[in-house]
Amino acid sequence: VRASIIADLVEGRLEGGGDPDITGVAPLDRAGPRDLAFLAQARYLSYLAGARPGALLVAAKLAEQAIVDCPRIVVRDVHRALALLLPELYPEAAVEAGIHPTAVIGPGAELGAGVRIDAYAVVGAGSRIGGRSRLGAHVVVGDGCVVGEDVIVHPHVTLYPGVQVGDRSILHGGVRLGVDGFGYVHERGGHRKVPQVGGCVIGRDVEIGANTTVDRGSIGVTEIGDGVKIDNLVHIGHNVRIGEHTIIIAQVGVSGSATIGRGVTLAGQAGVNGHIRIGDGATIAGPGGVFSNVPAGAVYSGYPARPHKEALRAQAVLFRLPELIKRLRAVERLLPAKEVSDE
Amino acid sequence: VRASIIADLVEGRLEGGGDPDITGVAPLDRAGPRDLAFLAQARYLSYLAGARPGALLVAAKLAEQAIVDCPRIVVRDVHRALALLLPELYPEAAVEAGIHPTAVIGPGAELGAGVRIDAYAVVGAGSRIGGRSRLGAHVVVGDGCVVGEDVIVHPHVTLYPGVQVGDRSILHGGVRLGVDGFGYVHERGGHRKVPQVGGCVIGRDVEIGANTTVDRGSIGVTEIGDGVKIDNLVHIGHNVRIGEHTIIIAQVGVSGSATIGRGVTLAGQAGVNGHIRIGDGATIAGPGGVFSNVPAGAVYSGYPARPHKEALRAQAVLFRLPELIKRLRAVERLLPAKEVSDE
Amino acid sequence: VRASIIADLVEGRLEGGGDPDITGVAPLDRAGPRDLAFLAQARYLSYLAGARPGALLVAAKLAEQAIVDCPRIVVRDVHRALALLLPELYPEAAVEAGIHPTAVIGPGAELGAGVRIDAYAVVGAGSRIGGRSRLGAHVVVGDGCVVGEDVIVHPHVTLYPGVQVGDRSILHGGVRLGVDGFGYVHERGGHRKVPQVGGCVIGRDVEIGANTTVDRGSIGVTEIGDGVKIDNLVHIGHNVRIGEHTIIIAQVGVSGSATIGRGVTLAGQAGVNGHIRIGDGATIAGPGGVFSNVPAGAVYSGYPARPHKEALRAQAVLFRLPELIKRLRAVERLLPAKEVSDE
Repeated sequence: VRASIIADLVEGRLEGGGDPDITGVAPLDRAGPRDLAFLAQARYLSYLAGARPGALLVAAKLAEQAIVDCPRIVVRDVHRALALLLPELYPEAAVEAGIHPTAVIGPGAELGAGVRIDAYAVVGAGSRIGGRSRLGAHVVVGDGCVVGEDVIVHPHVTLYPGVQVGDRSILHGGVRLGVDGFGYVHERGGHRKVPQVGGCVIGRDVEIGANTTVDRGSIGVTEIGDGVKIDNLVHIGHNVRIGEHTIIIAQVGVSGSATIGRGVTLAGQAGVNGHIRIGDGATIAGPGGVFSNVPAGAVYSGYPARPHKEALRAQAVLFRLPELIKRLRAVERLLPAKEVSDE
Repeated sequence: VRASIIADLVEGRLEGGGDPDITGVAPLDRAGPRDLAFLAQARYLSYLAGARPGALLVAAKLAEQAIVDCPRIVVRDVHRALALLLPELYPEAAVEAGIHPTAVIGPGAELGAGVRIDAYAVVGAGSRIGGRSRLGAHVVVGDGCVVGEDVIVHPHVTLYPGVQVGDRSILHGGVRLGVDGFGYVHERGGHRKVPQVGGCVIGRDVEIGANTTVDRGSIGVTEIGDGVKIDNLVHIGHNVRIGEHTIIIAQVGVSGSATIGRGVTLAGQAGVNGHIRIGDGATIAGPGGVFSNVPAGAVYSGYPARPHKEALRAQAVLFRLPELIKRLRAVERLLPAKEVSDE
Repeated sequence: VRASIIADLVEGRLEGGGDPDITGVAPLDRAGPRDLAFLAQARYLSYLAGARPGALLVAAKLAEQAIVDCPRIVVRDVHRALALLLPELYPEAAVEAGIHPTAVIGPGAELGAGVRIDAYAVVGAGSRIGGRSRLGAHVVVGDGCVVGEDVIVHPHVTLYPGVQVGDRSILHGGVRLGVDGFGYVHERGGHRKVPQVGGCVIGRDVEIGANTTVDRGSIGVTEIGDGVKIDNLVHIGHNVRIGEHTIIIAQVGVSGSATIGRGVTLAGQAGVNGHIRIGDGATIAGPGGVFSNVPAGAVYSGYPARPHKEALRAQAVLFRLPELIKRLRAVERLLPAKEVSDE
């Protein structure tokens, strides 16, 4: 693809002369003469020195500093440009519809037009798989599930019975949906399991990362809203409700009955305690544990989580403590010893 | 089921007139006229306003405040009542015994009466599966394993060779038992693997959550005691011993050779360092890392974990530090400058 | 095996008379008269009292204190001795080569001499499996993958298309390699997926623990260096590069585009933020989050991570704060009240 055509596609400005043919995208330190390299962050400017790409996709804010020996395509947002360009340069392999002869389809299951079901996949009794959806090898869909249209289920995913997944959602390898939640009552030295009879409803355009687990409701429903993106190894407890377009990074844990608003960001390894409410647009900034409700739009971090600015300030001061102790001691020495020691 | 019959079943008191027919249980905000809603915590009192359930199951301590337009069943412990009621209202689908024709049963394997083995399950050579146990689709049981009676193994579980699982235990999707522990010795710039030749013994009435991993012993045995309940995505290292009825919430990590007592609670995302001992009945209260032994009955939290009250107090004071610095500066200003600066 | 032969094998000194026949290794509290027990740490000295092993493998530094009634083999490093001894005492069962009749081998796939492929494994089109490698039951290898020689892939592992795995590496149950990374661009209230078109290259002699996930590169490559050892439930984001012989303990999370040097240790539950660089030989000491680059050889801990000594000192002082506040109040009382309150 000519650089000029790429520039049009990403709404960028081609500069520097020449219009090379580009066949791929590569990081600066690996790009060859047919590759488009990219520069989105100032911290990677130093990589320009040794780089020999065919062309450079560069953020407008870095354009002045990004001196290279090749044509440049200047855009406002490099990542957005890549999102537009990559599907053109790396078209997805066409997927042939069809049911592998080893797939086991339960009685009463309905498969939409154009579905693809790979080797050893199992679809439970009465389940419905929407048109053009793909079940990878070894996927197990329990009885009575409803999978929408154009859904991609990667290998080794388990849907417990009755799970619903909305259109265009993507489930990565090893995802478990509709797992029994963690519910027991104490009883004579032990614990009696509370049957987990609720549902598990995944919205449309949701993506769920590898080996992430989502419990079913204990009685009500665990609900993941439309457009939610969840990374790998995340735990979502029973009865949790997650609003639309919320982002949940790897290894986050959300305990039972928590309610997460719309457009929230939970950063990697964050934990949210049971029954907590996190308001729309809030951010939990890092590892730690949220033990009280978080207002809409707020940024919290730490354990127990507090407003992030407060938490940072407290952390910063913490490292000045040894000095403070010294100063306090100096003050004490200037005062009559007896009275201080009386305290 | 009549509300009066439910009240008897859960040892509750039916109040408010009427005896509606109840067909399900639902959260307050979703309950319809045939549903029993429930109220166990004061924080959900506000949901009563818009609620229109057929009847309300309510904790005695909230009974006075819980004003509703429908019959009420008052109980001491709502969750215990649900544990008794749910199996009646939502009876488990009967499971037919049988071996799916695609299951691969190794030479010398013994299957007890009434077992059910689903599609594509694999049972290794010489393994024994106890009576009425169920292996879900795609379960892999290695050679020489012993699975007790009435065990439920959900799809995609892996038992490495030689693993033992006690009666009535439940293993959720993606559980890995008897994995090689993390053991190496340094050697000429690299690491040599120490063969992991120990065992992995899971007790009776244990439940293990989805995608949780339990390593086998390096030489001895990794042991999970009777009645232990483990949530999703937990890591249990080699040689760990966990006492009876201990509760381990999601994403906890227990490093090798740690010994966890009976009736312990490890809250979500807690970490326990190698070789640590946690006494009977202790609680680790949140994320953090336990780097020293914890006495029986103690409550610890934080990193490194300390007695929870101390940790909370220290955290609270931390946020007063900026004010303390101000006060110290004020004191310093009142004193002869020279001598303080001499310090 | 005679104790004297074991002593030769591990380059140890047999002491205490007698040369018993040893058939296994066991922990002190479980060893019988045919077992070799071992003592590597002083904290287990108290277990000697009740122990009745056939012989004791003991670290030279503990030899004087380790009084037992049986022959002893004294070595410098007990764990190294075990690494040498265990393969002799517990020889791995011979693995017969062969392709299980239920395995599905895609068109154009190449299988090296002596490979073993277990029940229901799936090998994608055009993939290559090197000589003597073993694919466990239910392993799914995507299209176009390259697996080296003598690789061991345990059951239920998923390789997404195009993944490469080096010779002699070991992948445990539920590992997912080459998963789509977490990459989106904001767009009209939602998020558009950035296609993840990069590679995922695992070096030689790598071991990856159960249910660990490794994302493919977004554009470049996610690279795990030779000899890296990764524990269970670890998350490695897209474009991460990990240097040779680095050790990553359970439940660590490494965010996208982080660069981890050679010989680094990331302790359990540590988190590394995106684009961070961790220098060769550095150690991240515990749970927490690394939000700034870490120099080679440094030891960091906490959230945000700081040099470990500083972090420990700050933590220690934190618990003295209530006392400091008291002392400050005492000082204030000795000074003219009015001026302090003016502050």
